[in-house]
Amino acid sequence: MKRREFIKKAGAAGVAGAAATTLAAPAIAQKRIDMVVVSTWPRDFPGLGTSAQRMAQSIQDATDGRIQVQYFAAGERVGAFDSFDEVASGNAQAYHAADYYWKGKHPGWAYFTAVPFGLTYTERQAWIHYLGGQQLWDELAGEYGLKCLPAGSTGVQMGGWFNKEINSADDLKGLKMRIPGLGGDVMAKLGASPVSLPGGQIYENLVSGAIEATEWVGPWNDYAMKFYEAAKFYYYPGFHEPGGFLSFGMNASWWGTLSKTDQQIITAISGQENDKVMAEFNANNGAFLAKLINEHGVVVKEFGDDVYDSFGKGSNEVFEEVQAHSDLAAKIHASFEKARSEVGAWMNLADGAYLRQRNRVLGLS
Amino acid sequence: MKRREFIKKAGAAGVAGAAATTLAAPAIAQKRIDMVVVSTWPRDFPGLGTSAQRMAQSIQDATDGRIQVQYFAAGERVGAFDSFDEVASGNAQAYHAADYYWKGKHPGWAYFTAVPFGLTYTERQAWIHYLGGQQLWDELAGEYGLKCLPAGSTGVQMGGWFNKEINSADDLKGLKMRIPGLGGDVMAKLGASPVSLPGGQIYENLVSGAIEATEWVGPWNDYAMKFYEAAKFYYYPGFHEPGGFLSFGMNASWWGTLSKTDQQIITAISGQENDKVMAEFNANNGAFLAKLINEHGVVVKEFGDDVYDSFGKGSNEVFEEVQAHSDLAAKIHASFEKARSEVGAWMNLADGAYLRQRNRVLGLS
Repeated sequence: MKRREFIKKAGAAGVAGAAATTLAAPAIAQKRIDMVVVSTWPRDFPGLGTSAQRMAQSIQDATDGRIQVQYFAAGERVGAFDSFDEVASGNAQAYHAADYYWKGKHPGWAYFTAVPFGLTYTERQAWIHYLGGQQLWDELAGEYGLKCLPAGSTGVQMGGWFNKEINSADDLKGLKMRIPGLGGDVMAKLGASPVSLPGGQIYENLVSGAIEATEWVGPWNDYAMKFYEAAKFYYYPGFHEPGGFLSFGMNASWWGTLSKTDQQIITAISGQENDKVMAEFNANNGAFLAKLINEHGVVVKEFGDDVYDSFGKGSNEVFEEVQAHSDLAAKIHASFEKARSEVGAWMNLADGAYLRQRNRVLGLS
Repeated sequence: MKRREFIKKAGAAGVAGAAATTLAAPAIAQKRIDMVVVSTWPRDFPGLGTSAQRMAQSIQDATDGRIQVQYFAAGERVGAFDSFDEVASGNAQAYHAADYYWKGKHPGWAYFTAVPFGLTYTERQAWIHYLGGQQLWDELAGEYGLKCLPAGSTGVQMGGWFNKEINSADDLKGLKMRIPGLGGDVMAKLGASPVSLPGGQIYENLVSGAIEATEWVGPWNDYAMKFYEAAKFYYYPGFHEPGGFLSFGMNASWWGTLSKTDQQIITAISGQENDKVMAEFNANNGAFLAKLINEHGVVVKEFGDDVYDSFGKGSNEVFEEVQAHSDLAAKIHASFEKARSEVGAWMNLADGAYLRQRNRVLGLS
């Protein structure tokens, strides 16, 4: 387009837009929209709860109060795991959660938080935005009357806390470990005894010896849990959650009643928060890892190739079962696998290769 | 806080917010704000130009036309590199650019796009949001009457196209390479002859032999440039731009006149776009790398340790000079270096270790 033509067209669009605004605005201003947000996080829980609260406030602020948001942390209105039904039924308008909590309803939900051998932050954003991820999320959520948007990520998680060294896959046999979700299913394939425990009960079970190992999140979140008192070996990298992704799930009918403007504002805030949560975890993990090592004598260890090969085998078996669940589960897995293959291979030349060379040259360890 | 208290407080805030809205909204609706956005990208340029255009449109849409945006690509209103002055002077309200274009005004600007041995996407977001990066950006931009926000990233870039193999640092001596910015300064320290050329002139110079090598972005953007016709060796990873970060720079006085609501909308859109641009590059680079190899016989090679060590030495020399420029340059460098050290070391246990193990087990290459 020539410059003159462009200016003419832009000018015309501008005027049309302004006219529409002047007519529509008073009506919008008078219509107050109430929005109840429930969440799966305790109030002020670092990184997760704080982000959910910030997001709720941002929606109210960025709509100039047009949308009035009431936020309820886990247990303040409904229990954490009742958030899904509360929103699907229309009792509340949105939840802030990790969608793999709903994998009992459909295993496809796991892919939108984290699956074993899954996607890192930068890979997953490529899948969601440009390689079909959001469309499949919409299809799955649509079956339950929901519309979900990205709302944060913990980044790559640690492999967990162990009270003994894990030198080979044999050391996993019979191991009583707190590890929920598909990661736990993989551990079961390898002969371990996975246990599901809410956060508040892990420490006592680890101290009593009822469990011998546990995964949680990463140094920043784990520091407060004091697992190091009962398990000194802190393993990396976690195969089970290479980026715990959060979700802002809204009642789809309610979402459909919003103006395009309000939909865009909420979508933009979700994108902003998604990025910010990842940044906060990565900003804090390094410093808290140092505290764990220096203050509490934590021994940081890397899983060996043999152990990781076993994680891989177990994951394949679990994925076979997931795909057999339904056409939609198989379709989500195929899309995920294609993205992992394409973007993952690119990472060999990009983030992976660069981090290795830069950190080697600078001696960063 | 107890649940009952929370509901009371939330209710109170809700009422106050609604009252303020009802009074303020008609005034806002009648106040139309004009915003001219200039940019350093050609119209529809993949990833960069398209994002700038999408961002301009989003600001108009998400404010329901309250802000009327006119967007001008490079050369449509002012030349690409005149964008800075156009906005600083108040002739336009915002630019979409890569801030290292302004390093001639102050070398501190380079840190907010990319510096040699700099930060990857996930690292840089940690720095900007939680480790002091945005505050320093505000300080630097404030000296020029600007307010800048993140607006995208190319992800880790390739090292460039070469018409011969680079087996040791000696092979860089005398090499005529198109590489602008601090990366070019590093190449000069290593005995190469860096050249700065606009994108449209690189191909002809490479074909004629006037230059023997060039960097550009990554497979997706490079594919269209046909560099492979004159230089078969495509090296990774780039040491010079581990994530070319884009900037949405606004006239600070104009920014100050906006309501908190509009500031929050623009900030959210900037956060959303920042994430999306990175996702688009990572989504496309893998597929286009395969096309380069399969359709055009491009030879992909990794820089050896010896070469990377030399890049490291050269970068240190360049950073010495940058820090000597001014107190602010030294302050920005110190903050950047601290973030790189803390978050970078964490990456050894997180993204770096995970990508290596996952891709090894899955055989992704």
